[in-house]
Amino acid sequence: MTLPAETNVVLLSGGMDSATLLHLVVHAIANGPVYALSFDYGQRHRRELECAAWQAKAAGVAAHRVVDVSFFGELVKDGTALVGGGADVPDLADLDAAQRDQPPTYVPNRNMMLLSMAVAYAEAQGAGDVFYGAQAQDEYGYWDCTLDFIERINAVLELNRRESIGVMAPFIFVSKADILRMGLSRGVDYSRTWSCYRGEDVACGTCPTCVERLKAFAEVGVEDPLPYKTREP
Amino acid sequence: MTLPAETNVVLLSGGMDSATLLHLVVHAIANGPVYALSFDYGQRHRRELECAAWQAKAAGVAAHRVVDVSFFGELVKDGTALVGGGADVPDLADLDAAQRDQPPTYVPNRNMMLLSMAVAYAEAQGAGDVFYGAQAQDEYGYWDCTLDFIERINAVLELNRRESIGVMAPFIFVSKADILRMGLSRGVDYSRTWSCYRGEDVACGTCPTCVERLKAFAEVGVEDPLPYKTREP
Repeated sequence: MTLPAETNVVLLSGGMDSATLLHLVVHAIANGPVYALSFDYGQRHRRELECAAWQAKAAGVAAHRVVDVSFFGELVKDGTALVGGGADVPDLADLDAAQRDQPPTYVPNRNMMLLSMAVAYAEAQGAGDVFYGAQAQDEYGYWDCTLDFIERINAVLELNRRESIGVMAPFIFVSKADILRMGLSRGVDYSRTWSCYRGEDVACGTCPTCVERLKAFAEVGVEDPLPYKTREP
Repeated sequence: MTLPAETNVVLLSGGMDSATLLHLVVHAIANGPVYALSFDYGQRHRRELECAAWQAKAAGVAAHRVVDVSFFGELVKDGTALVGGGADVPDLADLDAAQRDQPPTYVPNRNMMLLSMAVAYAEAQGAGDVFYGAQAQDEYGYWDCTLDFIERINAVLELNRRESIGVMAPFIFVSKADILRMGLSRGVDYSRTWSCYRGEDVACGTCPTCVERLKAFAEVGVEDPLPYKTREP
């Protein structure tokens, strides 16, 4: 039995979750061309976008589009530490309980904005699902990175009268260590992913996303191929 | 009793609904500064944006921002007649039943994209509600311009852990004639609004939005101050 080919869109940030998801979708899930979509919204950590391009090529996508939404950084710069001009990125260890519920690196309503664009792109291409590497973190979290959020976005999209486009977030309850295991078994090159929130040459090792990443590598028992400030070479 | 001042954001397209809403919010609803937000997404009918700027000034907003989201037109151009490069804009009279359910002037997932940006802007400003002039049309409609849509967007936003931002669409069940009556009683200058979907110097009078507008003026018994191709001067 041959299923009809279906086009899919993968949101690709260049971090380890979305890079792993891209390889999974291309090689194990999609039955048709895969389009990767990245956003340049004025991130401090621009290295992410270089990694996204590298991974898109490595996975063999039909096309990789980088959309310049840097105006968005301008629009929300008073409300976040994650774009240039905002407050400093904190260490995970310095976050109190309330901040772990919504760290200063939260970007106001960013995920709804990115998903709405990915869905628009998918709809204009006649594509099927949008794959999104959202993953519930162990130590901190964002309201717009939860299963509830995905389900409610899909409840909005169900109203579309012509196209049936859903947001698929298969990693939402998968631990970062398990994501890493899946990617390693498929040969994903994690030296070509970038997670650090701080826009420096070498990953800091102490910001929330570095801590989560290093913990996942430690749990799997593999050394992270990236250099870290906190680790002697 | 003095209520605490609250900042509000109004989505301002430059059409008659959003222009009326802006004046209502500034003069009758808001208890604090009002910010108007317009989007340049590569509309054929650029006159709208000039009208938006005029109305923002006339209403006396705290600030009017026009965000260039023209990349969005590029992203979805295969899926709509409303941005340059897409299919032709049809006359309302030429739409069959299925098209009235979703006219070719539908822009894929545009309203979720615009609302998500308005909410992001409001959140970054510490603002309260986002006012949105969506109105259920008599003769045709879009899935992302319904009460269901607004309610489900608000269901997503309710998950926000810090800010309570809602999308308010007070015109959703108000007829265009009643919107016009409200605006006329407040002195809104409708010669400085633009509705026609076709990007020509004079409004066509036959596209879906021209037909709805002219019907509203006829119902109220006032002459539309705009010139129309279909009306002899």
